[in-house]
Amino acid sequence: MSDFSPTSPVHPVDVSIIMGSRSDWPTMRKTADILDELKIGYETRVVSAHRTPDRMVEFAKAARGRGIKVIIAGAGGAAHLPGMVASMTSLPVLGVPIKSKALNGQDSLLSIVQMPGGIPVGTLAIGDAGAKNAGLLAASILSLSDSQIEAALSAWRQAQTDSVAESVED
Amino acid sequence: MSDFSPTSPVHPVDVSIIMGSRSDWPTMRKTADILDELKIGYETRVVSAHRTPDRMVEFAKAARGRGIKVIIAGAGGAAHLPGMVASMTSLPVLGVPIKSKALNGQDSLLSIVQMPGGIPVGTLAIGDAGAKNAGLLAASILSLSDSQIEAALSAWRQAQTDSVAESVED
Amino acid sequence: MSDFSPTSPVHPVDVSIIMGSRSDWPTMRKTADILDELKIGYETRVVSAHRTPDRMVEFAKAARGRGIKVIIAGAGGAAHLPGMVASMTSLPVLGVPIKSKALNGQDSLLSIVQMPGGIPVGTLAIGDAGAKNAGLLAASILSLSDSQIEAALSAWRQAQTDSVAESVED
Amino acid sequence: MSDFSPTSPVHPVDVSIIMGSRSDWPTMRKTADILDELKIGYETRVVSAHRTPDRMVEFAKAARGRGIKVIIAGAGGAAHLPGMVASMTSLPVLGVPIKSKALNGQDSLLSIVQMPGGIPVGTLAIGDAGAKNAGLLAASILSLSDSQIEAALSAWRQAQTDSVAESVED
Amino acid sequence: MSDFSPTSPVHPVDVSIIMGSRSDWPTMRKTADILDELKIGYETRVVSAHRTPDRMVEFAKAARGRGIKVIIAGAGGAAHLPGMVASMTSLPVLGVPIKSKALNGQDSLLSIVQMPGGIPVGTLAIGDAGAKNAGLLAASILSLSDSQIEAALSAWRQAQTDSVAESVED
Amino acid sequence: MSDFSPTSPVHPVDVSIIMGSRSDWPTMRKTADILDELKIGYETRVVSAHRTPDRMVEFAKAARGRGIKVIIAGAGGAAHLPGMVASMTSLPVLGVPIKSKALNGQDSLLSIVQMPGGIPVGTLAIGDAGAKNAGLLAASILSLSDSQIEAALSAWRQAQTDSVAESVED
Amino acid sequence: MSDFSPTSPVHPVDVSIIMGSRSDWPTMRKTADILDELKIGYETRVVSAHRTPDRMVEFAKAARGRGIKVIIAGAGGAAHLPGMVASMTSLPVLGVPIKSKALNGQDSLLSIVQMPGGIPVGTLAIGDAGAKNAGLLAASILSLSDSQIEAALSAWRQAQTDSVAESVED
Amino acid sequence: MSDFSPTSPVHPVDVSIIMGSRSDWPTMRKTADILDELKIGYETRVVSAHRTPDRMVEFAKAARGRGIKVIIAGAGGAAHLPGMVASMTSLPVLGVPIKSKALNGQDSLLSIVQMPGGIPVGTLAIGDAGAKNAGLLAASILSLSDSQIEAALSAWRQAQTDSVAESVED
Repeated sequence: MSDFSPTSPVHPVDVSIIMGSRSDWPTMRKTADILDELKIGYETRVVSAHRTPDRMVEFAKAARGRGIKVIIAGAGGAAHLPGMVASMTSLPVLGVPIKSKALNGQDSLLSIVQMPGGIPVGTLAIGDAGAKNAGLLAASILSLSDSQIEAALSAWRQAQTDSVAESVED
Repeated sequence: MSDFSPTSPVHPVDVSIIMGSRSDWPTMRKTADILDELKIGYETRVVSAHRTPDRMVEFAKAARGRGIKVIIAGAGGAAHLPGMVASMTSLPVLGVPIKSKALNGQDSLLSIVQMPGGIPVGTLAIGDAGAKNAGLLAASILSLSDSQIEAALSAWRQAQTDSVAESVED
Repeated sequence: MSDFSPTSPVHPVDVSIIMGSRSDWPTMRKTADILDELKIGYETRVVSAHRTPDRMVEFAKAARGRGIKVIIAGAGGAAHLPGMVASMTSLPVLGVPIKSKALNGQDSLLSIVQMPGGIPVGTLAIGDAGAKNAGLLAASILSLSDSQIEAALSAWRQAQTDSVAESVED
Repeated sequence: MSDFSPTSPVHPVDVSIIMGSRSDWPTMRKTADILDELKIGYETRVVSAHRTPDRMVEFAKAARGRGIKVIIAGAGGAAHLPGMVASMTSLPVLGVPIKSKALNGQDSLLSIVQMPGGIPVGTLAIGDAGAKNAGLLAASILSLSDSQIEAALSAWRQAQTDSVAESVED
Repeated sequence: MSDFSPTSPVHPVDVSIIMGSRSDWPTMRKTADILDELKIGYETRVVSAHRTPDRMVEFAKAARGRGIKVIIAGAGGAAHLPGMVASMTSLPVLGVPIKSKALNGQDSLLSIVQMPGGIPVGTLAIGDAGAKNAGLLAASILSLSDSQIEAALSAWRQAQTDSVAESVED
Repeated sequence: MSDFSPTSPVHPVDVSIIMGSRSDWPTMRKTADILDELKIGYETRVVSAHRTPDRMVEFAKAARGRGIKVIIAGAGGAAHLPGMVASMTSLPVLGVPIKSKALNGQDSLLSIVQMPGGIPVGTLAIGDAGAKNAGLLAASILSLSDSQIEAALSAWRQAQTDSVAESVED
Repeated sequence: MSDFSPTSPVHPVDVSIIMGSRSDWPTMRKTADILDELKIGYETRVVSAHRTPDRMVEFAKAARGRGIKVIIAGAGGAAHLPGMVASMTSLPVLGVPIKSKALNGQDSLLSIVQMPGGIPVGTLAIGDAGAKNAGLLAASILSLSDSQIEAALSAWRQAQTDSVAESVED
Repeated sequence: MSDFSPTSPVHPVDVSIIMGSRSDWPTMRKTADILDELKIGYETRVVSAHRTPDRMVEFAKAARGRGIKVIIAGAGGAAHLPGMVASMTSLPVLGVPIKSKALNGQDSLLSIVQMPGGIPVGTLAIGDAGAKNAGLLAASILSLSDSQIEAALSAWRQAQTDSVAESVED
């Protein structure tokens, strides 16, 4: 892991989407999709707390200096990645509990959200909804100092509201 | 609820701490304490999703316009306040599950974190640790565009690290 | 949402069936089916607490004035719709927890049933059985002042009893 | 159990509050209190599904004929009272899960709410909040055909809203 | 349901297998199978606590007089059948929690096992294993005063032990 | 453990009450109390599956030969005693989950009730209610071939029913 | 079961993999696979705590004398095998909770991990991951006095780290 | 953290007891007590995964080189310490879930035990029993190559067995 160069170079890379395993990508892709919709630059990386701890340390300590503003970490089971990254950066870290095999993500959720006082992780819902919402919360955070993102987010939210038809059937 | 004027006027009010009931204050005071330590301005309000829904709507819709940057909402049981506020503002909303009587906050946690795709709430741990961490995550968010807060947060984190003695006993 | 006009105009519309998403309809259709059997008029609407909060407020505040007598709300995950509607109407509100993806409706159930003192939601079972029972409970409520519904409900219950064969196999 | 005569004869007895054991009274008293506030007549009875099944059958079958309009049943553990009464009356039955010793009412909640399709029980929250809300939901049901109760309920709800001070401290 | 006559008249009917719904039969058939293996006479009946409460009362009160020695009751969800039958007979009642749709039988288990002091239900495991074991426990009870059943049970247990091959593969 | 001689020699020893630790006695004493009331002879022993496995094996294998008819085993946490004893005797074994420190007996309950097909344990409720009910279920089993116990049990049940006053207060 | 002779005679048999049923083998094979990779000798046996208790006692008491160094026991539901074996040997015993049908291994996990003070079982994750990790933990234990295993384990861990590609897609 | 010198210099330091916070010491002292009884040398350190991540990395990477043979890590809530240490050492790591405030250690247990395949943590019971057993499991591991520890452990186990009186009362 030499440089963490952006994978979506069109926009400045504000968000880093990391995950413990490639098998988390079908979920975390929902984060990438919403950031694409909102034209927010991001990078994606597999960074395993347990299998690549050194890469994780390097990543977490370097992120703020590289210009990353929000880190979104997806992990399942004994999901340590979001909390460990949060222990090594003052950037906001958002955690997405991946649905696990035996316990359906209950272990992932508790492992991410129940952080001790001192090191926060903003935790989203288990699975796809959480991954999408992590992107939206990142957009919300970025919108505080970026009026373009604010406009894109507001438009997206309005479109979402408009798309909810009243009728239960077509 | 006429004006939501700041209760801590020394610093500009960046954070709004709301809660469903006065009985949540002993928990949410941990949020206020950490913001005080970091010299971040905040207001505190009782806004009940269920008992004062109009006040909640008014609050949520006006918050961004009043200059609030982060909303921290504590609620217990069928905890709807964080999610409902998030549905009416594009500001980042952080949720603190209050420990409930019968179920120890498991109901609060699930009611807050399991938001559907489209409306995110960054959820923290149940109880005091979560309340403290909501303040720290708000500081982290504000630090992205405020170097004074960044410095205060970094100093606070370093002090926390330094304070962890190695020995198990005095 | 201009008028909430009835979709089943044969009978006066006594019951309003609302749900947070069209994807809840396969479950909530069980409510409609039983009301059809009992010849009770109803309307159906998609009203999302999170994606269409204004529509929800408008709906909840207008329901009693429009002649609705019972509101049945289905929602899943962080299921805020039943409780939020109950906070804005003095009509009886019945809640149906929709089976959710990761947690099988445990989150939906707790988010609906664990309402704080002051705002009640009469909660039914998770999923299809709950949806059917919400219709039956509404019939029971309406039967207090409508002898035709009382007769229909009693007949339905007797038929149900009669239909339970003793033998385990045909 | 000869007559189930009203214990609060000032108002006509619309509601029957039953419970499986005298030890449930400290919780179910919250139901009585709110009905007193709303000037709704009620009776209270200990009717155990398990220890006095005959009394329960007699009670359930006679209730509608005696003029009872809503039955509120509190029970804990393997809480069968609400569902069994509901199986023998077409009146609306509301269930209050009593907080149990070992499992804090999780067993009570599931035993009451997870009724099979065909026999509904409108379930409220575990413990005091649920008991209070059962009274309020009964009032809401009765208000459909009793304008005095409607007025009392609306006034009570408004007073509740007015009583929520905004400040977190006196 | 006029007489509860035995369905397997070869042996005297010692055991009554009841269930709340025909849909429980694929599980409860495991009870019948093991009783067949042990040459213990039994009857099977659908007796719903909620949909046929009168049939249940009649069944429970008559069972001991009809010569039944052990009642095995399977039920799911808010599973009231075993406990309600136990409240109306001094016969030993064994309960089998049927795997439920949303909660996998956790509701069934708690509704059956958490009986209040005074009315016991001997509860077995959720699903097929529990149904089989209910038959074995009935055999064990009957074996106390029936040496043929004791011999059959001992032989069955020995055969079970002998059938456990040591090797993990054929 | 030389002889397992009865501790209550007035009546023949039909029931053996065993428990994993002396600390379980305050719960299991409820079993002894009800057997005393019903004049059923019993012995009590501390037999730990984990700390005295040989004693357990000896006990389980000898019980039937010593004339014991029902074994009641209380255990907490990873509660293996009831199931292991059941694996080594064809006597009916009843299990009482002791309330555990961290998990309130949820671990005890699942460790006892979720036995695999082939080896049954009739499981009662967590804690005192379960201990009392284990005694009552043993009485019920013994009553099948002992008319004195049948009479005592019926009288006890009737007295229990008679003692349930209707009024909620003295 | 006469001798427990090794099934993989190439290396000395350091590890004994036992399981309660042949149906656990698809999970426990993951333990065997990793031991094969690390060239650690092992044997595999079906030893049921409940169906073959004598075989279990014999196995547990003989293991240390036969030269076994680590026992890995997989079991599901009321999973007593690991704890019971641990009660009869001073060897380190590792437990693998098998995913169960109704409760997804939550019962297996609690039955294995919640051992009382005095008899330890080192418990791994539910299912395949736990089975693999049991093999790795055994390797780690053996590596303390076997430099070849230490080298193999270190190499395996390094290869694992190296295999984690950074990119989310090929 | 300069040297991690032993705190119990009488015996060579084989075991390192670490914990996330001084508040874990009352639990983890149970580990130290049993090691003292068995005359096994150990050190104790506060090493927080979240508040002192660098100290944790340094500790984990140096442990094997310093001669430590077994690491015992206690942690509560989102308990990442055992798993993170295990990711950076090939030594056996044992995890003790500390009883947490809101969720009684259920979060601690899942965060420790549900490790992904590749990095094992041998997990013990929640709280005091788990802490004591971690010491015993460490002794068991060390006994494989240290006959003195083997003798001490066997004697301790025999004394434990002998101390279990049969009688339920003194």
